[in-house]
Amino acid sequence: MRLLITGGAGFIGARLARTLLARERLDGRRIEQIVLADQAPAPADLLADKRVQGRVGKLLEHAHGLRDEDFDGIFHLASAVSGECEADFDLGMSSNLDSTRALLDALRHRQQKGAKPTKLVFSSSIAVFGPDPAYPFPPLVGDDTLPTPQTSYGAQKHICEHLIADYTRKGFIDGRAARLVTVTVRPGRPNGAASSFFSGIIREPLAGEEAQLPVDASVSHPMASPQSMVEGLAKVYEASREAFVGRSALNMPGLNVTVQQMLDALEKVAGPKVRALVKPQRDERIAGIVANWPKGVTSRRASALGITAESNFEDIIRQYIADNEGHPTALKGLRELGVQR
Amino acid sequence: MRLLITGGAGFIGARLARTLLARERLDGRRIEQIVLADQAPAPADLLADKRVQGRVGKLLEHAHGLRDEDFDGIFHLASAVSGECEADFDLGMSSNLDSTRALLDALRHRQQKGAKPTKLVFSSSIAVFGPDPAYPFPPLVGDDTLPTPQTSYGAQKHICEHLIADYTRKGFIDGRAARLVTVTVRPGRPNGAASSFFSGIIREPLAGEEAQLPVDASVSHPMASPQSMVEGLAKVYEASREAFVGRSALNMPGLNVTVQQMLDALEKVAGPKVRALVKPQRDERIAGIVANWPKGVTSRRASALGITAESNFEDIIRQYIADNEGHPTALKGLRELGVQR
Repeated sequence: MRLLITGGAGFIGARLARTLLARERLDGRRIEQIVLADQAPAPADLLADKRVQGRVGKLLEHAHGLRDEDFDGIFHLASAVSGECEADFDLGMSSNLDSTRALLDALRHRQQKGAKPTKLVFSSSIAVFGPDPAYPFPPLVGDDTLPTPQTSYGAQKHICEHLIADYTRKGFIDGRAARLVTVTVRPGRPNGAASSFFSGIIREPLAGEEAQLPVDASVSHPMASPQSMVEGLAKVYEASREAFVGRSALNMPGLNVTVQQMLDALEKVAGPKVRALVKPQRDERIAGIVANWPKGVTSRRASALGITAESNFEDIIRQYIADNEGHPTALKGLRELGVQR
Repeated sequence: MRLLITGGAGFIGARLARTLLARERLDGRRIEQIVLADQAPAPADLLADKRVQGRVGKLLEHAHGLRDEDFDGIFHLASAVSGECEADFDLGMSSNLDSTRALLDALRHRQQKGAKPTKLVFSSSIAVFGPDPAYPFPPLVGDDTLPTPQTSYGAQKHICEHLIADYTRKGFIDGRAARLVTVTVRPGRPNGAASSFFSGIIREPLAGEEAQLPVDASVSHPMASPQSMVEGLAKVYEASREAFVGRSALNMPGLNVTVQQMLDALEKVAGPKVRALVKPQRDERIAGIVANWPKGVTSRRASALGITAESNFEDIIRQYIADNEGHPTALKGLRELGVQR
């Protein structure tokens, strides 16, 4: 089978590709090729695999060409992040809405030429949920919570969910939208997302650097490790239409955890000196955005598909440490300040 | 003040214009001009009013020009109907989604040039609601029922609701989306909407013509008269942002009524001979579509704004009769076969 991953050079996209290549199979079929489409080149280890083809450029410009190309399945992960979309409205509309529609129309074109509807997994986000004055926000947002997005990013993701549901209903594609919770611990540097600090307060201390905590430690939020998210996306792909139940987007599972619990887990895994590198420094802008986010999720439909997240934050930290054992600096703080393990 | 009504030559648009012109004021301000934009020319009585300007053409083509024009408020009613959108996917996407976005972008452009955000009332539809296998459909759909549209028309309307909410949040416009229930009794001929028969089973008998009833008499559906809908749209316009509560779409009130109750009302108002012109002739296609529709609505937020629908279907029929007293044929059945009134 031939797969396309949009955003395939990104953090989740590349990890998904590595996982699928290691498994060699998806949905009971042998993976012959994975095309990684992204604005940046895919990581070298992936491009070195002869089953991988990299493709660099904007999805909106590439999408039309997909009318002439057959894919069995697509993981559509490419997206501008929330901070970017809030700062640059046109960028968000173009990157998140127009690109998705162009992709869907290319797939529709193929289906109307006689091809089987392409299977498509769309990474939506729990950013579709926001508190609306007319509708009290539940403590935990469920699959059936009314989405009233409070960011352009969330609105664009939710609009795409509905496009995908309707293109699926019409038989143009076989689409499934899955709302990702916040993925931690992201490697690398902070990005434009307001959620960036959720990774930063673990990643920076483990590297021996100070990290700012821009919100109260009582803030609660649903999170999952990159690997559980990737495994979950593969299960969403493999679900039968009947098992997916309907065409509405579902919530991916998350560990509903407070910042305090995250810091406690960091101390437990890496010791008090590493944990002490997290410095409270309130940022009203970020605190204001985060105050509008869900404190936790439920994910009845994903659970029924056998999709799970971690049950404690220590496991999420340990996954990051294991991922970075060979990295020159990522675990410098842990080595120099950390507890013996 | 200067107003634009898109779909201004249509049934609701023209009635709204007549009502506003008769009142002379909206939102406490004198109406200087109403522009009626539509693909068809506006009715002659409206064009004869010196406060009215007609504009014929596709909204998508006109929208860009609105960047150079100031309106205090817009009623955005232009839309392709459900049957058309189901038959011609591109037409629906273009007429309902692309046109709305082009309109919103023109208004955003004006706001970014320093103009006050234009007030915009969008006619959404209870077609945003449909039964999803994952979420049991409530007996009555409320403002807070999860929309899982089962038609392209419903999906497009719901997507526009979210665009309007986000453009409003960003301060580009002052938008309000109101979900119209089925408006009866529509004059004229059947149109492409699957709901067309709801008017036909009243209109045709009153004109002395047979009407087909394509569904069971037990079918229940929310309805309102054209005049209550028009009055309601004006109230949505006049509501303060605080009174509207948030930016999510609200349900307009409807009379939740069965086809049997409609026929009983017809007999009560027009007599058994007129009522006998309705002939059951099941149409599986229409019955299948209607089976996915809400059996009734609640409309807590609209009620709080003082918006009401009729409390019995006889009043809806009597409004149609009063509207058509001078019409040469519309009440032929009532005159020749009807009860003495």
